[in-house]
Amino acid sequence: MNLFYNNPQVESLINLALSEDIGTGDITTLSTIPSDKTAHGRFIAKEDMVICGLDLAEHIFAKLDGGILFKTDAKDGDFIEKGTVFATVDGNAQNVLTGERTALNFMQRLTGIATRTREAVREVEGTKAKITDTRKTTPGMRVLEKYAVRVGGGTNHRFNLADGVLIKDNHIAVSGGIVNAVRNARNTIPHTLKIEVEVETKEQLFEALEAGADIIMLDNMSNDLMRECVDIIDGRAVVEASGNMGEKSLRDVAATGVDIISIGALTHTVKAADISLKFSIS
Amino acid sequence: MNLFYNNPQVESLINLALSEDIGTGDITTLSTIPSDKTAHGRFIAKEDMVICGLDLAEHIFAKLDGGILFKTDAKDGDFIEKGTVFATVDGNAQNVLTGERTALNFMQRLTGIATRTREAVREVEGTKAKITDTRKTTPGMRVLEKYAVRVGGGTNHRFNLADGVLIKDNHIAVSGGIVNAVRNARNTIPHTLKIEVEVETKEQLFEALEAGADIIMLDNMSNDLMRECVDIIDGRAVVEASGNMGEKSLRDVAATGVDIISIGALTHTVKAADISLKFSIS
Amino acid sequence: MNLFYNNPQVESLINLALSEDIGTGDITTLSTIPSDKTAHGRFIAKEDMVICGLDLAEHIFAKLDGGILFKTDAKDGDFIEKGTVFATVDGNAQNVLTGERTALNFMQRLTGIATRTREAVREVEGTKAKITDTRKTTPGMRVLEKYAVRVGGGTNHRFNLADGVLIKDNHIAVSGGIVNAVRNARNTIPHTLKIEVEVETKEQLFEALEAGADIIMLDNMSNDLMRECVDIIDGRAVVEASGNMGEKSLRDVAATGVDIISIGALTHTVKAADISLKFSIS
Amino acid sequence: MNLFYNNPQVESLINLALSEDIGTGDITTLSTIPSDKTAHGRFIAKEDMVICGLDLAEHIFAKLDGGILFKTDAKDGDFIEKGTVFATVDGNAQNVLTGERTALNFMQRLTGIATRTREAVREVEGTKAKITDTRKTTPGMRVLEKYAVRVGGGTNHRFNLADGVLIKDNHIAVSGGIVNAVRNARNTIPHTLKIEVEVETKEQLFEALEAGADIIMLDNMSNDLMRECVDIIDGRAVVEASGNMGEKSLRDVAATGVDIISIGALTHTVKAADISLKFSIS
Amino acid sequence: MNLFYNNPQVESLINLALSEDIGTGDITTLSTIPSDKTAHGRFIAKEDMVICGLDLAEHIFAKLDGGILFKTDAKDGDFIEKGTVFATVDGNAQNVLTGERTALNFMQRLTGIATRTREAVREVEGTKAKITDTRKTTPGMRVLEKYAVRVGGGTNHRFNLADGVLIKDNHIAVSGGIVNAVRNARNTIPHTLKIEVEVETKEQLFEALEAGADIIMLDNMSNDLMRECVDIIDGRAVVEASGNMGEKSLRDVAATGVDIISIGALTHTVKAADISLKFSIS
Amino acid sequence: MNLFYNNPQVESLINLALSEDIGTGDITTLSTIPSDKTAHGRFIAKEDMVICGLDLAEHIFAKLDGGILFKTDAKDGDFIEKGTVFATVDGNAQNVLTGERTALNFMQRLTGIATRTREAVREVEGTKAKITDTRKTTPGMRVLEKYAVRVGGGTNHRFNLADGVLIKDNHIAVSGGIVNAVRNARNTIPHTLKIEVEVETKEQLFEALEAGADIIMLDNMSNDLMRECVDIIDGRAVVEASGNMGEKSLRDVAATGVDIISIGALTHTVKAADISLKFSIS
Repeated sequence: MNLFYNNPQVESLINLALSEDIGTGDITTLSTIPSDKTAHGRFIAKEDMVICGLDLAEHIFAKLDGGILFKTDAKDGDFIEKGTVFATVDGNAQNVLTGERTALNFMQRLTGIATRTREAVREVEGTKAKITDTRKTTPGMRVLEKYAVRVGGGTNHRFNLADGVLIKDNHIAVSGGIVNAVRNARNTIPHTLKIEVEVETKEQLFEALEAGADIIMLDNMSNDLMRECVDIIDGRAVVEASGNMGEKSLRDVAATGVDIISIGALTHTVKAADISLKFSIS
Repeated sequence: MNLFYNNPQVESLINLALSEDIGTGDITTLSTIPSDKTAHGRFIAKEDMVICGLDLAEHIFAKLDGGILFKTDAKDGDFIEKGTVFATVDGNAQNVLTGERTALNFMQRLTGIATRTREAVREVEGTKAKITDTRKTTPGMRVLEKYAVRVGGGTNHRFNLADGVLIKDNHIAVSGGIVNAVRNARNTIPHTLKIEVEVETKEQLFEALEAGADIIMLDNMSNDLMRECVDIIDGRAVVEASGNMGEKSLRDVAATGVDIISIGALTHTVKAADISLKFSIS
Repeated sequence: MNLFYNNPQVESLINLALSEDIGTGDITTLSTIPSDKTAHGRFIAKEDMVICGLDLAEHIFAKLDGGILFKTDAKDGDFIEKGTVFATVDGNAQNVLTGERTALNFMQRLTGIATRTREAVREVEGTKAKITDTRKTTPGMRVLEKYAVRVGGGTNHRFNLADGVLIKDNHIAVSGGIVNAVRNARNTIPHTLKIEVEVETKEQLFEALEAGADIIMLDNMSNDLMRECVDIIDGRAVVEASGNMGEKSLRDVAATGVDIISIGALTHTVKAADISLKFSIS
Repeated sequence: MNLFYNNPQVESLINLALSEDIGTGDITTLSTIPSDKTAHGRFIAKEDMVICGLDLAEHIFAKLDGGILFKTDAKDGDFIEKGTVFATVDGNAQNVLTGERTALNFMQRLTGIATRTREAVREVEGTKAKITDTRKTTPGMRVLEKYAVRVGGGTNHRFNLADGVLIKDNHIAVSGGIVNAVRNARNTIPHTLKIEVEVETKEQLFEALEAGADIIMLDNMSNDLMRECVDIIDGRAVVEASGNMGEKSLRDVAATGVDIISIGALTHTVKAADISLKFSIS
Repeated sequence: MNLFYNNPQVESLINLALSEDIGTGDITTLSTIPSDKTAHGRFIAKEDMVICGLDLAEHIFAKLDGGILFKTDAKDGDFIEKGTVFATVDGNAQNVLTGERTALNFMQRLTGIATRTREAVREVEGTKAKITDTRKTTPGMRVLEKYAVRVGGGTNHRFNLADGVLIKDNHIAVSGGIVNAVRNARNTIPHTLKIEVEVETKEQLFEALEAGADIIMLDNMSNDLMRECVDIIDGRAVVEASGNMGEKSLRDVAATGVDIISIGALTHTVKAADISLKFSIS
Repeated sequence: MNLFYNNPQVESLINLALSEDIGTGDITTLSTIPSDKTAHGRFIAKEDMVICGLDLAEHIFAKLDGGILFKTDAKDGDFIEKGTVFATVDGNAQNVLTGERTALNFMQRLTGIATRTREAVREVEGTKAKITDTRKTTPGMRVLEKYAVRVGGGTNHRFNLADGVLIKDNHIAVSGGIVNAVRNARNTIPHTLKIEVEVETKEQLFEALEAGADIIMLDNMSNDLMRECVDIIDGRAVVEASGNMGEKSLRDVAATGVDIISIGALTHTVKAADISLKFSIS
């Protein structure tokens, strides 16, 4: 079982989702399907996809009714071809039908993210660049969406404001320059964290290197400027490319030599994967 | 104040969102920005948009710090041109910076939905068709996303499985036909609810009319078939067009004479609106 | 298992109820009953009743201790004669005794409601009138109390302010008449909902019919006036009788020809059913 | 402000109640009452009552909208004559109308309890008997219902299984007699608690006195037998009369000389007080 | 299983503890230990201790992963010698490692309390004095810490402000003396509770006896003065010694003849027991 | 206002703490102190201390009653001499008395931690060593206890298993050596995090350096061995000393040249600071 299903925040979100969808009960099903009927449901991929959310779907059905059996030979991260029946669900018809939409809503969104991430990872294959996400996630779904990014082959940027340091223009201006800002941070943060500095110009880059930044984010730069910056940095810091990466050629960005490409659109602009659940009831 | 901010589910989601973003504290800000600094932030539309989430953003900042002042002359539903500063936020710099991402994540998603809905509504302008959403929403955000649809000029389909009846193939098969299914529902549901039946063929349509369905959903039909069905129905029921409507010409669908066009993509495949928040700190 | 036990609100209420009754532990039982003792408990009807809450009682004991066995041949809605042992509970004596009062408090209240509803339904037997509840329920228990009404043979009015439209005098006054109020509602509410209008006079009735109300509530009218209104409506709308119905002859009200009789007292003025739980411990 | 409104359980119940009544929003009001309208509401007693829940009603409206003004010259426990306007509420019309039913549902139930308690207290006036409640309360409402009993002039029995010791037949049987049961309890419970023993016969009474019980509950005894028991006890323990007291003459019971009369019906079989809230909107 | 694990407050605390320790996942373990590995862990006492929290540790691991097997021959309250392996845990390596610290943090604190309590109980062995705790507990852990005191052989003082009456100087001053304060309390509190009065002088003691206090707390008195007070009280009330008892010879205090010695340091100044958990993974 | 008071986990803990202390109400105060009385309370340091929890105490009283005024010239981290009145609280007497114990329990524990940390920091003054905490915190209180460590002048180690990487023997054994374990971690964790490796021998140290560990934890080594390791590392990694540091001379440990000394006892074995709150009521 995947460990984050014990995460109280994930459980809270699942509870919210079930509650908002079921309300006080599925009156259509309760009034038309006798309580002794059994449903057999097949999950069908209506397009190619990198599946994500199988354990979560199983968990959601189990929360509704411990007797529902969710079966699959696939695992999160598998590529599923259009037309494939990749999982089945069996159990009390009323309960299975009631859980359908919530399970699909989670699975379609996460699969959409994993599929999009896989494409991005493929695009930079052969370069050293890693694809990462941002904090531009759907409210309440961060841990799940970042999981989907990993499932798609990406890595995660910081999860929240406490587990990473990213010094931006405001922090710099108030601290009186990058050197001061980095020193202020170094003095008080846990020693387990690196310090990242966002730069928009070469001048800022030189200052960030001087300050000893562990990671340098090149923000909204042209590919040419990024290439030049990578040369200047020359291995002294991890280099992250950032800024509307969702609309650029990732292959070209990777060719500049950056280590990390972070893409907000992986999670903020998602196309839900097309998955259908077909039932037979007996 | 907008009433749904007293909705415990919305409050729970906001708490989840703040918690997942702030974690144990914004260590970058806490280590570089003294606690006596003040921030002035300007919300800027980076593209044309139908704004949504202004009250919500104000509410989120107020939760973090009652002393933060959020100001705007706009209201949800206003069209904002690219480049406009449509709102400002002033207050303790640490607290304002800490709330920035959560407020933007909500606002960008809701504005994306409202903007997309407005386009759809414009597309059918002059016809009698209304644009509605579905239950294909992001887990935890249903009430907010359906609010964004209304803000964009759409209307809402049922919020959950309890406040509307939608009889589909499975319900029909088990009940022994549409007539029986409708009668079963009518006998037990609250008298305040209409009964909707999903049909895929003309045969089913005739049966649904016979059963006295209040609303008939034409599922995945060609425009020609829909036009024919509208003629058959002839005002005896509300007519809803459904099935991948996000990929069709809504104008053509509306031209078939249907009353309602329901579009899952309004909420399941959203492009976040591009909004930035620029600060000056003193 | 009944699906509403997955309703987060019901689970929250059960948790509240257990917490408020158990506090930090049943010190009487813990200090006098060794932890290896087993209890056998028999639920006895001390008067005639329509039982309601059997699944809920089982669920409550299971929450306390998964090893407790609740057994019954009855199901919610069965008529139980005075003196009948209708269920048993077996398990660890400490845990069974600790759950006793919470299980009984739920079951006695719900059974009281189901029993009272059954009487009301019997009173109008042979007429077309249905017995329904209102929103005058006990705070926190709405979904359970409305379930008990269904168990007793009644149907439910709207569950909350979002899943039904009921236009009253204030809405009418502000909107500038019934016709405007109905049109305002029709334009914005989900198309899945009917519109109900409350009227107190024949003048209002004519206006409501003119406005195309789907349901007309006759509020606090004499039976004679209701009969007259039913004749005027003549099938053009569903007719609901309302207003202190708990104190009237339901048979007489039904004889006026109304479709629905809604009774607040079903849930706001309840006589708890007399159920006792007798133990033997070994 | 009354302190129990900071009780997390009470807040949880209020949140549950608002959530279950408002759902995703009061669609009737939102569609017919413009957001800039103001409501003036008057609470009217439709029968004589001992009012209870004024602070709670104020608190509920304030949770919905901090700008709503609730005013009253009365305080919980005041006797209100039929026809009196005892409180008013002013504020945004949408928000006031939305909170109406939840506020009334709490207030009508609590006032019903306080009124019934006051009657019971009056019935035993001049005797030394106190009227107390039991643990037969509505799930989730215990602290509020016991507050209503105090407001009506009664006192409270234990709130939960942890803050009082009540040794019944099962505890006695397993412990090998009353003397052992009392000793077992005395050895382990907090020294701040008294020990109560339930007896049904004189033999048990003698044993309970021998065991040094602090309180003796006479369960389901005739008045004659109770009088005899009171004589035997002769001040050596507090004496509580129990068992369907709701159906007996409390004056006769008090005349037996008992100290405490505990009545389950005070909270398990409640007649809601008839309170109406009339609005004018401008 | 111990009943308080159904206590919503205990469950809430465990959820908080897991959440604050696991965050969004144990990234070290997830990246270095394959998901199909199994861990065998041994709990080792690194010093002599009275073990407490075994059931709780089992419960915590089970919450993370129902497949984890926690085994022990010990039970809470057993004395464990330094060097003993007193429990084992087996299961999925990722999940077991993830739960380690939370389980240990609970167990080490509770065992520290039980061990310290046992020492105190031993010190007064042979006297009639009982060792009790106070309300000076760690926020959120009261019910668990008071359980640890019982496990160590102590008894509990009141759990909260509602289940015991302790009249102190402020209450007395405002009431106009001890006699009035006790009478005021007696009139309104549940009849199941005793009344305790705190006294600092013999004058106050005489007044408390006069008022009929059930328990008298001798606060911050010398042993000589306590002995004198015990003589004066002469069995008319339970006598409790209080005030920095953690720094006194408990044997000497007990020799004064008091019934109860309450020690805040049992829970506010705790030395965590030294327990280690050693793993082998295969 | 300090930002972590918006942390839902901190709010949950405060709610738990208030709930467990207040229960259903402070019956002593409610029965002896009229509701119109005002209390003036003075917080007095009964020993020297580094104060921590002032904002938290203010927040707790404000949660109970917005009208309570908490005043202080001190701020968290100030040294307070024995005998000083360092804060006052004024407001409704019932409410202030009811919040007293919860506020003190938090403040005394946090102040104890800050005071102990300050001593440790003083002990290593003039060396480069920083004092840090561990994950051995009290369940539910981690964010607050780590705040107290910072207030005392220490820095924080990782907050949870997700915001830092610490590779220990089990991770190494399963990965097939330190080099592999570090590489596995590096490939999947966020690039914003450093990697720490725990070593117990020089052989492991050499391997960790080879693997490119960012931080090396010297676990349970003698001071001599640590000095030798520091020489070997020679600035290539941050060096952390760990293992029963609470029982060693921190000055001697610092003299070995380590960068970080992490001390579990800072939070797992705490002496509550002695603070009293004295009231006058009028």
